[in-house]
Amino acid sequence: MRLLGLDPGLRNTGWGIVESVGTRLSHVANGVVKSDPKKSLAERLVELAEGLEEVIAEWQPQSCAVEETFVNKNPTSTLKLGQARGIALLIPARAGMPVAEYTPNHVKKSVVGVGHAAKEQVDAMVQVLLPGVKINGPDAADALAVAICHAHHVSTMKNLGGIKY
Amino acid sequence: MRLLGLDPGLRNTGWGIVESVGTRLSHVANGVVKSDPKKSLAERLVELAEGLEEVIAEWQPQSCAVEETFVNKNPTSTLKLGQARGIALLIPARAGMPVAEYTPNHVKKSVVGVGHAAKEQVDAMVQVLLPGVKINGPDAADALAVAICHAHHVSTMKNLGGIKY
Repeated sequence: MRLLGLDPGLRNTGWGIVESVGTRLSHVANGVVKSDPKKSLAERLVELAEGLEEVIAEWQPQSCAVEETFVNKNPTSTLKLGQARGIALLIPARAGMPVAEYTPNHVKKSVVGVGHAAKEQVDAMVQVLLPGVKINGPDAADALAVAICHAHHVSTMKNLGGIKY
Repeated sequence: MRLLGLDPGLRNTGWGIVESVGTRLSHVANGVVKSDPKKSLAERLVELAEGLEEVIAEWQPQSCAVEETFVNKNPTSTLKLGQARGIALLIPARAGMPVAEYTPNHVKKSVVGVGHAAKEQVDAMVQVLLPGVKINGPDAADALAVAICHAHHVSTMKNLGGIKY
């Protein structure tokens, strides 16, 4: 099963795709969809939407997970993130994929084993779990961690004969 | 020129359409796009997106304005609003419309004449400016106020021979 992980942001939305076969996990692709800060907000959201549609069309993932945005103390930043996150949830859902959501701590726990791991530990574990992967920056690393977390969940669900993702 | 005003919200996104010919303003349609709180966030955003696409396809507005979301002190509410607002900006932009943004105070000032008007005063002025209009609830009233504010701007811009909306 091919899984898409997303780490939404207005300027940079990281994406990562992994293939999960039984308990085996392999890297497919990763990258960042960017929006131009000089453009209007609506135009930037269109850039994010089109970028994500291209990723989905090219790599054909079957299920998606989005990191739950860290709710910032700065309401203006939270609003910006929310707008980008709306696009990150909408586009895979409209492409027919189920969209799961995981908190940052859940992702860390799933990838590193502890919920309060440092960012560097998460990135290092992504490298260990997907040997030889070339990661396109920190946002793509986070997105791969979300995809790995989703793979663990989907495989657990399958083993339990449970919810179809 | 046919103008669409939007008042975004995750549960209820109000919309209102007015026709502006010179300094004359007339009502075209108004309503609310709803999302089902029992569904997942991604599914709710799809409902909002599809609802707005239907409105645009049916009424063919040429320009759009979205109210700037009141940045709440509750970050969770701000994030929810942000996600809905992302959709309200994306869908008209993808339909090829220019998308303007106005603060709530700007909308009030444009409709009532003062920036700190009460909600009831705004609703009453919408009734006065669009005689005979039947308004589908408070969110649709707010959306019509945004459309009226946008009409004033567009007509000022035209008089100045300025920016094309």
